Amino acid sequence: MRLAMFHRDGNKGIAAAENQEFRGITEDHPEYPGSLDRLLAQGSDLNAVAKRLLAGAPVIDLDSVTLLPPLQAPGKILCIGLNYADHSAEAGFDAPAYPTVFTRFTSTLVAHKAPLVRPAQSEQFDYEGEMVAVIGRGGRYIQQDRALDHVAAYSIFNDVSVRDYQFKSPQWTMGKNFDHTGAFGPWLVTAESLPKGARGLRLQTRLNGDVVQDAMTDDMIFDVATLVSLISEVMTLEAGDIIVTGTPSGVGMARKPPLYMKAGDRCEVDIEGIGVLSNTVSDEQR
Amino acid sequence: MRLAMFHRDGNKGIAAAENQEFRGITEDHPEYPGSLDRLLAQGSDLNAVAKRLLAGAPVIDLDSVTLLPPLQAPGKILCIGLNYADHSAEAGFDAPAYPTVFTRFTSTLVAHKAPLVRPAQSEQFDYEGEMVAVIGRGGRYIQQDRALDHVAAYSIFNDVSVRDYQFKSPQWTMGKNFDHTGAFGPWLVTAESLPKGARGLRLQTRLNGDVVQDAMTDDMIFDVATLVSLISEVMTLEAGDIIVTGTPSGVGMARKPPLYMKAGDRCEVDIEGIGVLSNTVSDEQR
Repeated sequence: MRLAMFHRDGNKGIAAAENQEFRGITEDHPEYPGSLDRLLAQGSDLNAVAKRLLAGAPVIDLDSVTLLPPLQAPGKILCIGLNYADHSAEAGFDAPAYPTVFTRFTSTLVAHKAPLVRPAQSEQFDYEGEMVAVIGRGGRYIQQDRALDHVAAYSIFNDVSVRDYQFKSPQWTMGKNFDHTGAFGPWLVTAESLPKGARGLRLQTRLNGDVVQDAMTDDMIFDVATLVSLISEVMTLEAGDIIVTGTPSGVGMARKPPLYMKAGDRCEVDIEGIGVLSNTVSDEQR
Repeated sequence: MRLAMFHRDGNKGIAAAENQEFRGITEDHPEYPGSLDRLLAQGSDLNAVAKRLLAGAPVIDLDSVTLLPPLQAPGKILCIGLNYADHSAEAGFDAPAYPTVFTRFTSTLVAHKAPLVRPAQSEQFDYEGEMVAVIGRGGRYIQQDRALDHVAAYSIFNDVSVRDYQFKSPQWTMGKNFDHTGAFGPWLVTAESLPKGARGLRLQTRLNGDVVQDAMTDDMIFDVATLVSLISEVMTLEAGDIIVTGTPSGVGMARKPPLYMKAGDRCEVDIEGIGVLSNTVSDEQR
């Protein structure tokens, strides 16, 4: 099942699909079940929500509405760096023995088809295609063999990085938190609809149609279950938190010459079984 | 003016003081103005709120209630690393040319007098006394000469760090985000009650009564106005966001032998004109 959030005529809406056809309703409808943020927070079963929408809601053409990030206010956006051995090497780091975690604020999020905004003060605007794991049930000290029970869904992220700001200091926060640089979507896919732990999926990033990243989710150094378990050793995970699981090799900064994004470019992150997250790049207007 | 949030008999409350005596009311009172989070979000003038409380509310003994962190859900907790030259040197880093920013989640926050929880899996539980600047009016690309107009209040933070986790990877997130390791309070002091930019204040951290950090807020490499301006070049600041401005030298990990906190210890962070944030250390119960 896929679940998307959208905006139409001043109202938020939710839509679900099992195959190609989405069905959905907006918040002015008495049957509106709530946003995906709220449904996760209250512990709703996303598959059951999707089934109810598919049984009763009208067909929606997602191309005729404005998609929103599937979650607009995740309590935590936990991003994993250096989680593919070949990317860790191309970035000049040793393969890690423990996850490298950095964070994004919700102010960075943009939806499928919304522009990624290249800040005026940087020329180093770099793509990073990644898979997202969405926490459905929170917890602390979650055992690894139970960790996937806490993941409700998966999605796609383009963890766009402003490289010169990322490396102005030892911590990456500034380069990862420019407004409107984190594309998230187009929708959530429930965990039950994918292989266990979303393993064995092909992840491809394309810039203007050219393949620039191509890997399998199996290539992660720390798989989803391990990440959930290790993060929950530090902090209580809550429903609606997201883990952005890291990018494979092929980023623009590691190329010779470097390949950075500019206004008008189209970047797509395609994960088998989940979908294609597509965004154009705009120059910031000041 | 000082403004505190507290909890009494199942209700949240707000209290204000100009001198020693606090006056306040709880949320079941018709005149309750809202939490400090909400007051900041709606653009209220904190000095005016305090004056109304002082004019009409009953006296409250803060020792008879449970204090809460003055803000319980800041949209962003932006922590500055290496912002005092002597601390940067003791931590083995060059003095920075650009702010080092890392983040905390709200799940780390504890109030004045609440226990700081030392996780069972670490022996390296280290204090960091710091001043907090609270954003009162948001913005992007805030000019440095206007930046202090965007700061509504100041407070105190103990940015307690789990050192072995902090340095397990190149990013510090894990060591800075254990549940219940970020003490914040005891209250906010409005900007008008302090020197411009809260400069010239003495900051002292005491562990079991012994002075372990002693510095002046003037010693910051990036002062409050500079931090507000540089951060807002990257992201939109919102009312209620907080900047935890960094710790001076004297942290436990830099001592020979290292000095880490253990159960039963009392750590106080004392900033002239703001107050004393006092917390005990408890071992985690699993």
